[in-house]
Amino acid sequence: MGHSSFHPTPRTLMGPGPSDVHPRVLAAMAQPTIGHLDPQFISLMDDLKALLRHAFQTENPLTLPLSAPGSAGMEAAFANLIEPGDKVVVCINGVFGMRMAENVRRMGGELVTVEDEWGTPVDPQKLSDALAAHADAKVVAFVHAETSTGVCSDVAALCGIARQAGCLTIVDAVTALGGIELRVDEWQADVVYSGTQKCLSCPPGISLITFSPAAAEHIKARNTAVQSWFLDLSLLMGYWQGEGARAYHHTAPVNAMYGLHEALLMLYEEGLESAWQRHRNMHELLAVGVQELGLEFVVDSGCRLPQLNVVAAPEGTDEAQVRRKLLADFNLEIGAGLGVFAGKVWRIGLMGYAARRENVQLCVSALRESL
Amino acid sequence: MGHSSFHPTPRTLMGPGPSDVHPRVLAAMAQPTIGHLDPQFISLMDDLKALLRHAFQTENPLTLPLSAPGSAGMEAAFANLIEPGDKVVVCINGVFGMRMAENVRRMGGELVTVEDEWGTPVDPQKLSDALAAHADAKVVAFVHAETSTGVCSDVAALCGIARQAGCLTIVDAVTALGGIELRVDEWQADVVYSGTQKCLSCPPGISLITFSPAAAEHIKARNTAVQSWFLDLSLLMGYWQGEGARAYHHTAPVNAMYGLHEALLMLYEEGLESAWQRHRNMHELLAVGVQELGLEFVVDSGCRLPQLNVVAAPEGTDEAQVRRKLLADFNLEIGAGLGVFAGKVWRIGLMGYAARRENVQLCVSALRESL
Repeated sequence: MGHSSFHPTPRTLMGPGPSDVHPRVLAAMAQPTIGHLDPQFISLMDDLKALLRHAFQTENPLTLPLSAPGSAGMEAAFANLIEPGDKVVVCINGVFGMRMAENVRRMGGELVTVEDEWGTPVDPQKLSDALAAHADAKVVAFVHAETSTGVCSDVAALCGIARQAGCLTIVDAVTALGGIELRVDEWQADVVYSGTQKCLSCPPGISLITFSPAAAEHIKARNTAVQSWFLDLSLLMGYWQGEGARAYHHTAPVNAMYGLHEALLMLYEEGLESAWQRHRNMHELLAVGVQELGLEFVVDSGCRLPQLNVVAAPEGTDEAQVRRKLLADFNLEIGAGLGVFAGKVWRIGLMGYAARRENVQLCVSALRESL
Repeated sequence: MGHSSFHPTPRTLMGPGPSDVHPRVLAAMAQPTIGHLDPQFISLMDDLKALLRHAFQTENPLTLPLSAPGSAGMEAAFANLIEPGDKVVVCINGVFGMRMAENVRRMGGELVTVEDEWGTPVDPQKLSDALAAHADAKVVAFVHAETSTGVCSDVAALCGIARQAGCLTIVDAVTALGGIELRVDEWQADVVYSGTQKCLSCPPGISLITFSPAAAEHIKARNTAVQSWFLDLSLLMGYWQGEGARAYHHTAPVNAMYGLHEALLMLYEEGLESAWQRHRNMHELLAVGVQELGLEFVVDSGCRLPQLNVVAAPEGTDEAQVRRKLLADFNLEIGAGLGVFAGKVWRIGLMGYAARRENVQLCVSALRESL
């Protein structure tokens, strides 16, 4: 068998993620590995936590990166907050709400679902009704930016309803962070997690998570051990928190943390509001192109995500064939539909470093030639 | 708060891991990110599986990298193999055996421990006795190369005893793989996992795992869902196995996989036996230096790991002070003792790219100046 070094043909990444990675982030990751208990690395960890708090707009002390992708961030949120028998309300309007429900089932939680149609946001009234019918619910979970449908739900409203019912909230912000407004403290969300590979211009592999003081107290008061040793916050904090010496838990992915730090620094330098505005601007530019091509968005403009544009494939078009052509002829990746949208839509990402003018131009002109 | 790019002072990594990363691996990781469903990435995944089978010396179809560090590899082994109530015998002769036991407890397994003193290998007779007393045991777990003590246990013998008792085996080969002889098929080990950050010259962040056909059958026959959605092999294989289209599970850490591929390729180019011999040779060179310094190994030569040398700190020496001096004056990292060895020993790693002549020279001469 002939093995050789792998040298990928570069692509322009305008799918649902990973999105284009900034050259500064790639260069940061190639720096020499140092020890995960090296004083230099400890200071990097401290700066990472500060930059994460800025990105999440929170003062939560319990804010840290986890050494595994976004799905592990989701699992960490549920594994730490939920004990067997706890009633959990999960709002489902796409793939990632479904995945949340599956997490609750596997952890022995008592699952209540609130379902909305794919392509529409979570309906606050339905959540109110569900909480009225389930006064013993402890946690409410939903997705801020549904990557499978391109829909934005109202985090502040949903968190408010949950809080009034005495529930803690778990918010999936994987595709949201850095791309649209997200204010963890102002909106009083309890557990919010995200990933590196969407609007942070960073490769996949790390998740980011923050816990409100109320969530942290809730975890401290658990009666049962967290099922996952690897994702147990009480153990992780021995490594990520405290003054001076850190307790060894697992070996942190040192070079991935270099990349994450550079990506968060770039977001800090740009400014959150500027980054949100850039995503909106690029979305509007894309919308003009989409209209010129005679294509239509699937999601109403009122709840449409600027960073993830779900566009209907024209009747009679082999959407997979178009994607293959974009990749072969233009090295351009756009995303397929998932679930009920499979075969019917394209998902065009404008996330992080991918949200720039030249990408929009390439995408629109390449689609024009390929349709 | 003044944030700026992070540029670490390079170190020579001769602790328990991470170890020195080869420049080829660092360069590979800095290549442009492509999509995790890109045909180019699918072909990389296929080559990764082939190279992993070579490194593990196995034909197991179910051999793959996991998108999280070695501790997650351990958790994946237990989470997939064990169901609540299963009796599991864990052999403990250091920190990582203890961690295995903790995994069994959290998963609701019935734990039986076989304990050996720190600094000695797992005693096959004790395992035989335990299995005679617990005929209903289903799984036996132990560590091949105990990173906390520098001891090598006899994998072939322990797997043979377990097999005779009708048990499947879980073997921790995190520090073993690439550094000492490991033959998964010949030794008939069932589940073996490792990590990237030891003898593969690769940064931390990914674990490697292989399942025998018997283990794969056992998993298929489970009555309960795996507690962890993220580590559920049945879901992971939809992404990592099969011909043609791969099912989306989580987003793979693309750039980390570039690095792992280059590291496994380098091991393939060097040859496994040559790599094992190089680790032995460097260990012998270090042993001469250690002796000249009047220092002593903690572990008997018969079961000593060449890649992880546990050396007693001389009576009256502040071992932490010596490590700080090595780091400050020579940018050299060696490891501290863990558990019962804390404050009493140094752990000197000669792993992967760190197992080379110039590192041994630096370590011995820097220790000479620092003692």
